Order: sequence, then structure tokens, then C-alpha cells
Amino acid sequence: MPVNEGFRNLRGSYLFSTIAKKVAAYKASHPEAEVISLGIGDVTRPLPQAVVSALHSAVEEMADEKTFRGYAPDLGYSFLRETIAKNDYQDRGYDVSADEIFVSEGAKTDSACISELFSLDSRIAVCDPVYPVYLDSNVMAGRTGACDPVTGQYGNVIYMPCTKENGFVPELPAAHADIIYLCFPNNPTGMTCTKERLQEWVDYANRDGSVIIYDAAYEAYISDPAIPHSIYACEGARTCAIELRSFSKNAGFTGLRLAFAVVPVDLIRDGMSLHDMWARRHGTKYNGAPYIVQRAGEACYSEEGKEEIRGIIGYYMENARIIRDGLAAAGYEVYGGENSPYIWLRAGKSSWDFFDEMLERANIVGTPGSGFGPSGEGYFRLTAFGSRENTFRAVERIRNL
Amino acid sequence: MPVNEGFRNLRGSYLFSTIAKKVAAYKASHPEAEVISLGIGDVTRPLPQAVVSALHSAVEEMADEKTFRGYAPDLGYSFLRETIAKNDYQDRGYDVSADEIFVSEGAKTDSACISELFSLDSRIAVCDPVYPVYLDSNVMAGRTGACDPVTGQYGNVIYMPCTKENGFVPELPAAHADIIYLCFPNNPTGMTCTKERLQEWVDYANRDGSVIIYDAAYEAYISDPAIPHSIYACEGARTCAIELRSFSKNAGFTGLRLAFAVVPVDLIRDGMSLHDMWARRHGTKYNGAPYIVQRAGEACYSEEGKEEIRGIIGYYMENARIIRDGLAAAGYEVYGGENSPYIWLRAGKSSWDFFDEMLERANIVGTPGSGFGPSGEGYFRLTAFGSRENTFRAVERIRNL
Repeated sequence: MPVNEGFRNLRGSYLFSTIAKKVAAYKASHPEAEVISLGIGDVTRPLPQAVVSALHSAVEEMADEKTFRGYAPDLGYSFLRETIAKNDYQDRGYDVSADEIFVSEGAKTDSACISELFSLDSRIAVCDPVYPVYLDSNVMAGRTGACDPVTGQYGNVIYMPCTKENGFVPELPAAHADIIYLCFPNNPTGMTCTKERLQEWVDYANRDGSVIIYDAAYEAYISDPAIPHSIYACEGARTCAIELRSFSKNAGFTGLRLAFAVVPVDLIRDGMSLHDMWARRHGTKYNGAPYIVQRAGEACYSEEGKEEIRGIIGYYMENARIIRDGLAAAGYEVYGGENSPYIWLRAGKSSWDFFDEMLERANIVGTPGSGFGPSGEGYFRLTAFGSRENTFRAVERIRNL
Repeated sequence: MPVNEGFRNLRGSYLFSTIAKKVAAYKASHPEAEVISLGIGDVTRPLPQAVVSALHSAVEEMADEKTFRGYAPDLGYSFLRETIAKNDYQDRGYDVSADEIFVSEGAKTDSACISELFSLDSRIAVCDPVYPVYLDSNVMAGRTGACDPVTGQYGNVIYMPCTKENGFVPELPAAHADIIYLCFPNNPTGMTCTKERLQEWVDYANRDGSVIIYDAAYEAYISDPAIPHSIYACEGARTCAIELRSFSKNAGFTGLRLAFAVVPVDLIRDGMSLHDMWARRHGTKYNGAPYIVQRAGEACYSEEGKEEIRGIIGYYMENARIIRDGLAAAGYEVYGGENSPYIWLRAGKSSWDFFDEMLERANIVGTPGSGFGPSGEGYFRLTAFGSRENTFRAVERIRNL
């Protein structure tokens, strides 16, 4: 019986599952401890009222045979695709049309499945450190070699170090990559990329025939006008880039699930339209996001919804400022947290040692940088997604260490 | 740039997309026509009140920071997994535990993605006719050869004809199949399989080392006690079978999205646990079904929910009876429709000719049997999911042809 051997190459368990187990074990042996998690990038603010109202209304439609909706269109309802195209792209001057928006249930799924467009002998390039899903999904697919136990790197993968030295923005790859995963504002480093630097990537991809998978899940946290909200701000991106977006980190949909991918009709490789391929993939392997959730997504673009989301982003960014300033005052070297909800700090020791110390001595959960790749070793990620109270308490505890 | 060549092997477009285009074109040129669709298997009854109430309550929880829920557990909330295991399995005497239930957003996605557990050189066996997703997802993955233009069959696939002669239940495959897709009550034929016949399949799979993917999306329509509601009614199924289930066709969740797969811990191949592999796959490529939808799923198992669902099933099964009896009275040879919402009728001509005739002369949309595979040629599928009024009108129109 031939099982998928790609799974054998996977190293350990999924990062956040490992952390969850460690935390559960600590809590079991220290039931009195008040553990604060600034680990997983999960939000804590409730859904905006505009979204709540839209959900209630849509549920009522589903309760009445005259307005009941069955299967959604595979690629998303027009009301949502058009709203997204207008607000996130056209109003900003980016050339993206509604039929290039593919609504889905999550950017994790999209980022894990998008490589189905490419052959198994295509070669991927990822940042190091990196969101584990890009890499693990390719390992499962069999697109990589085994993991080298010494370097911690998989075979047939181009790793692009993002370090203090290069400002956490990678250099162009030395060898040809077919698929390049980029994420800005970055998870985990919280760092961003200017339009000029991003344009270099787009030019490179067009020259070299690569496709960029651009994860912009955190674009709502950008306040600096020099930093682009979309890769389509760059000239030529329509012929080389797919963009992934999410409602999780702006409107708090981590538990509601809604996202979208942009696949331009101009994106052609080997004579095949990646837009048409992704449409066929959606049609065959997916049945559309829930109607009620698509209505909730639409409500994010109403005037009330936009205002509430600005409030949520502002809340988290104030948390980020508190963490940054507090850690800096405590003598830590900190990155990110200015156009991003992630703070990336130098641990001064191994990432997992620092994780254990934080958990045991301060009862704080963060994410070990080495869990995101070898170049993350010695770093630690904190998130601004906690409550204000917990953020204050966490910073206080770290300063008192 | 190496794109996924598997997509080039796909024949035409996804069946239901083709039908939708034909219908749209007909409506555009005949704006006065009152077209009735008994084509796609989509439900029309509104959501049960128990589900509506659960949705409203869960939305309110998401609106309050004290009860807000972010990321769901990857494999589903315990409250739902335990409710499913108890009601659908343990109370019926089937040995399935809560941690073997994998909650997902849809059985279409599950059935399209489950083959990721297996290597690309594994061989699949499918019924002919068959729900197109099983086959198309494997074509995309590159597990099949090209489509033979004469036979309409893909290379490296074992087709198991389901015909009038074998009562629409396939014979055991003559050659070894690694993965066997079975669906009972069947889509598209509406026919079922007794426990004795299903036991033969389980014994065969255990003997031959195959894995059965058992699609039981329509089990709620079974009224005959000789027909099993689950493959786990058969002895030995835990070592050879994965079962797929859905909330779409019983509780009307086609537009709400909720399903689950059962992967027993006893299912081991090549020393690997398919249960653990699927858990890892979920954890890496999926982020859990929406909390509010999981609460809606739980409500289906409340006393009120069960009662309402019985009412919905009864409504559709009365439609099925009306279609069956009406067509039989009009002289058609009809199958299915007794433990299934699908009626499979002999067209007396090619399936697509019959489709065109029904659309143009009776303004009725059905699904051409040949769209489900070569052995479906000459048949036509009607569904019982319409409203009572439309079902009556459709039967009347066909009888008057």
C-alpha cells in the first residue's frame, strides 16, 4: 500500500501544536499559575458590531424558504468579490478586477494549497525564518527532499535568510526558484518591505519566470505610507504574483474563517492560465465559503465596519507599542511592532531556552524563533493580540525578571 | 516554469459548471421560460429552527469579548466531535470514538483531498457512473493517465461499472486497487448496498490491503433496515475504511458548510497511521470550521433538531416518491428514490440529447448520466431537493411531453 512518503519527511509536529502541549503540561503541574499567551497569532477582540448585525440578518435569510441560499458560487458571491476588488484594490489605484478575487475559508488553506498549481519538480524559495505552513505543505506534497538533521533545512528548497544584517528583507535568490513565498508585513519578524525593494522582487520574478506567492494577511497594520498594502502596487506584478489576504487579523475572523486569493488573468506559465487553473481547482475541490460569513465579510467594508476595524487595529497597535517600549526599556533588542502586530526580540540565548524561561519564570507564552527556521534561532516572537490588561501585565513581568 | 501537468489531463469543465452555462444561455434566449431545476443536488428547505437559534446564540458569543472564540481546534471542537461519535456511531453500536472524527468545512473538500494520504503511484478504483470529484481530484494530482478520447476513461484508473445488470452495485475489482471510492446511498444512481454486500467489500479490502473511501453523505435517506448507515456496521472496517459524512443533505447545510471524516486509529498502512497523517494534514493545511457553524452542527443532534431534520428528510422523500411514481406512470424505467433523494431514469436516448429535450421542451434541468461516466450514458438524474410545488409541476410537464 503506497502511502504518501512526503509525510515521513516532516520534522516533528506542527510548531503551534508543540507549544500547546508544553503549555498544557506546565499548567497541569502549576494549576495556580496565571499564564498569559502572547504566542499564537490569535485575536482576542470580539467581532465588530457591523459584522454581528450582518451575521444575524444572513442567518434569518437562511431560516426562510423564500430567502434561503444553498451552495454558494465556488469562487465567492459577486457582492463580496466586487466589494473587495473596489475597496482593497481599485480605490487604491491597483488594477485588480472582481473576477480575479477567489473567496475562500482561510489564508492558511490558500497558502497551503496554492502550490497545487505547480509541478512536483518545481523548486520553492522561502524566507528563513518563515510561517511553517508554506514549507510543511510542500514537504507533504513531496516537493522537497528530506530534512538535514544538522542544518535543519529540507532538500531542494532555497532558504533566504532574513537577518538583522539585511534588515529582515531577503536578498534575491542566487539560484532559480519557480515559486517564491514572500510575506509582508512579515510573520514572524514583524518587518516590512518598501515599494522599491518589492519592485526589485517583481522585476526579478518577471525576468526569471518565477511566481511570487505574496502573503499580505497583515496589511491592515501598515501605517507608514512608504510601505505598499499590496504587491499590485508594483509595476508588472500582474504577470508574476498571486496575493493572499485574510479577514482574520483585521476584522477578527480567526474563528469565523474568511479569506481570498488574487490570481490575475495575466498570470500565464507554460501556456496555462494560473487564474483558470485556480478556478478549476476551487470548483473541483471546494464548495464556496458560507453565505452568512460572506455577508459578514461584506460588512467589513461598510462605513461602520471600516470604522470599527480601525478601532481594533488601533487597539492592537497600542499593545504593540507597549510591548516594544517596555522590552526596549528592559534592555532587549526589538524589531517589528510598528507596521505589524508581531514583535521579534533577540533572546540572548537559544529560542527554546528562552521559551522555557519565559513560561516558567514569567508565565508568558511566546513563540521560539527557531520554530520558524534556522535563522530564527536566538529570537523570540511576541504578539500584540492580547488584551490591554494582559499586555501590561506581561511587559511588567518581563521587566521584573 | 513547471506548472502542474495533471490539469492538462482534465476533460472539459466541471460537470455542473457546464450545465449552469447551458441553462444560463437558454434562459437568456427564453426570458419568459419558467425553468425548474432538479439538476444539482442542492437543497431548498430553510435551516431548521434549532440550527437558527444555535447560530444566533453563537454569533452573540462572538460579539462579546468574554465569550469570543478565535481559532478553533484544527480537528473540531470536542462538543461536536463527541456529539457526532455518540449519536451517529456509538448509539448505533458502531465502534468509533470522538478523536476519530475530523470536522471539516465540507465533504466535497474532504473527498477531493483525502487522496493526499497516498502516493502518486497508488491506483484508484471508482464506480462508473461516479460523483466527478473523486476522479477529477486524482487527475489534478497526477495520479491518473490522460483521458482516452474514445472510451472517455482516464489511464491508470480501475472503472467499476454500475449497471442495471448488477443492480448498480459494482463487482469487486479484477486488479489490485490501492484506494477504492464507494458511495452509498449512491450519487448519482440513488441505489444502495446491503450490509452483506458491503461486508464483501470490507473483507476484500482487508485481504488485498486496499483503503475504502466510503462516502455516506446521503445516509439520512435510508429507511430500509437492511441497509447500513455506516461502513463501520461491517466487521473489520476499522482497518480498511475512511468514512465521509456531511450536514448538507440532512440538515440543509449546503450553504452553511460542515462535514466530517472518520479515520480510525486502527487504519495503518506501510507502518504509518492514516489517522495521524490526516491529523497532521488538517493541522498544517486547515484552520478548523467556524465556531458558529460547529454550534449549528451540534444543534442538529438536539431533540428539536432531530425532529426537524426528520421532517426535512420526509419532505424530500415525498418529492422522490412523486417523481418516481409520476415517471413510472409515464412509462419511464426508474431507479433510486427509495432510500435516496436521487432518481436515475433511463432516457431512451443519449443523456445530453435528453438533457436538451428536457430543457427545451419541458423547461426542466436534470443531470445527464454520461456526465458521471461512460456507464451513465443513456441515463438521466433528477433530484428530490426541489420544492413540492416545483416537483409536482416538473412531473406534470414530463408526463405531458
